[in-house]
Amino acid sequence: MNIDGATRLYAIIGDPVVQVRSPAVYTAHFAQHDVNAVMVAAQASRESFDTAMRGLMALGNLDGLLITSPHKTAALAFADALSTRAKIVGAINALRREADGSWTGDMFDGVGFVSAAQKISTIEGKRALLFGCGGAGAAIAAELAAHGARSISLVDPDTDRAQALRAALAAQFDGCDVTVDHDGALHDIVINASIVGMKDGDGLPGDPGEVGPRTLVGDVVLRPPATPTALVRFARDAGAQVVTGQEMHGGQLDAISAFFKGAR
Amino acid sequence: MNIDGATRLYAIIGDPVVQVRSPAVYTAHFAQHDVNAVMVAAQASRESFDTAMRGLMALGNLDGLLITSPHKTAALAFADALSTRAKIVGAINALRREADGSWTGDMFDGVGFVSAAQKISTIEGKRALLFGCGGAGAAIAAELAAHGARSISLVDPDTDRAQALRAALAAQFDGCDVTVDHDGALHDIVINASIVGMKDGDGLPGDPGEVGPRTLVGDVVLRPPATPTALVRFARDAGAQVVTGQEMHGGQLDAISAFFKGAR
Repeated sequence: MNIDGATRLYAIIGDPVVQVRSPAVYTAHFAQHDVNAVMVAAQASRESFDTAMRGLMALGNLDGLLITSPHKTAALAFADALSTRAKIVGAINALRREADGSWTGDMFDGVGFVSAAQKISTIEGKRALLFGCGGAGAAIAAELAAHGARSISLVDPDTDRAQALRAALAAQFDGCDVTVDHDGALHDIVINASIVGMKDGDGLPGDPGEVGPRTLVGDVVLRPPATPTALVRFARDAGAQVVTGQEMHGGQLDAISAFFKGAR
Repeated sequence: MNIDGATRLYAIIGDPVVQVRSPAVYTAHFAQHDVNAVMVAAQASRESFDTAMRGLMALGNLDGLLITSPHKTAALAFADALSTRAKIVGAINALRREADGSWTGDMFDGVGFVSAAQKISTIEGKRALLFGCGGAGAAIAAELAAHGARSISLVDPDTDRAQALRAALAAQFDGCDVTVDHDGALHDIVINASIVGMKDGDGLPGDPGEVGPRTLVGDVVLRPPATPTALVRFARDAGAQVVTGQEMHGGQLDAISAFFKGAR
């Protein structure tokens, strides 16, 4: 790849950003498709987020943004239009500039997990246990419900946040039984969408219940393959099927690329 | 070169930017020196310049900026500290973030011409004729005076701008005779620092006077080598020595790289 004055810009904004894989992945994707564009990482604290967003969106040659932790909820305010799932989740991880100069926001965090999970198993009729009801957790819950999950148990230390997500899901999806806190049932799918596991030495995000060869375990936390999260190690020891953070991110690439390409 | 989450950012901000060579040149320079950094072009209109600057400078992984037309004067307001030549010129084309988070501005436009010109001839004792007293012209005039030019004739349709530059130069450099408008003298050095020549079909920026094999002619305008400016064509036809916009930009690279590297 080469950068020149005509190179179109994309940025992933977050804090920290040194660990993000999107710059390498999307820049390679653009090059493979002969698109003169790069994605760079843009580190902005909570305090500087608004200023940074306004500045990036003011650049005439910047066509899209990815938003990562801790800015996915704050980024909502920068979208002129939102997808339905972004509205349910109350957060976005992608923004694109439309031909008319307006910005559309969408949330692909759930898409990544579901597309990776569907390579292993169907979602329809399954009972899910989900740790973490922040942006990533809400996105995954919405996508699971949209794909016909029978039930979702939401676990989050912030009970209000979990209840709010339960209400949003219940309003949108009739057929999915959403509860807050571990429902004691056996779960077909166990997913960690909390930050537990990011730090070396972190344990499990909560009680995963009974996990065996027929359980699908997902963990959004991005870790080097050699040092997986405690949940991923636990799941593998139990013989469960595993979807790692890397695999979820891989599942997002095609969907987000299509989103960026589809600007009106 | 590869881009990842740890890649440090530099940007050149201007309008338009599709023609700028800095992204390719500096990105290649970083790669050659095993520095994980890229330079991208950032297009911002006059209306969006302040917002764009605040946003770019808010990014924790952005270490420096180049500023090109039409923003070199407006960029001055974003520097916490300025080099002497930037003060004389009243414009900057580079900003770097210091270790303490403050920003230092400098102006290298004159450095590029003088370093390219010095490969051909000395500056000391020479009589110069300069078209254009904007940022680039002021920078070249200051650098010529600092290198011992005997006289500089300033030509600009905006006479106030030319007079202001004359006064700033006279205050700083005793030994250099600075006049406004063509002084009728024979000039050793003729430089175009105006925008005349950017558009196809542009003529000369003004009367260059007598130009021959002993004259050094410079033109800041960047044109494809196959279609040089009218002034460059005129100079070559007259057998003069020529410094093109490309050569001036080449002369800036080392100086600006050292500036970026030298953040306290």
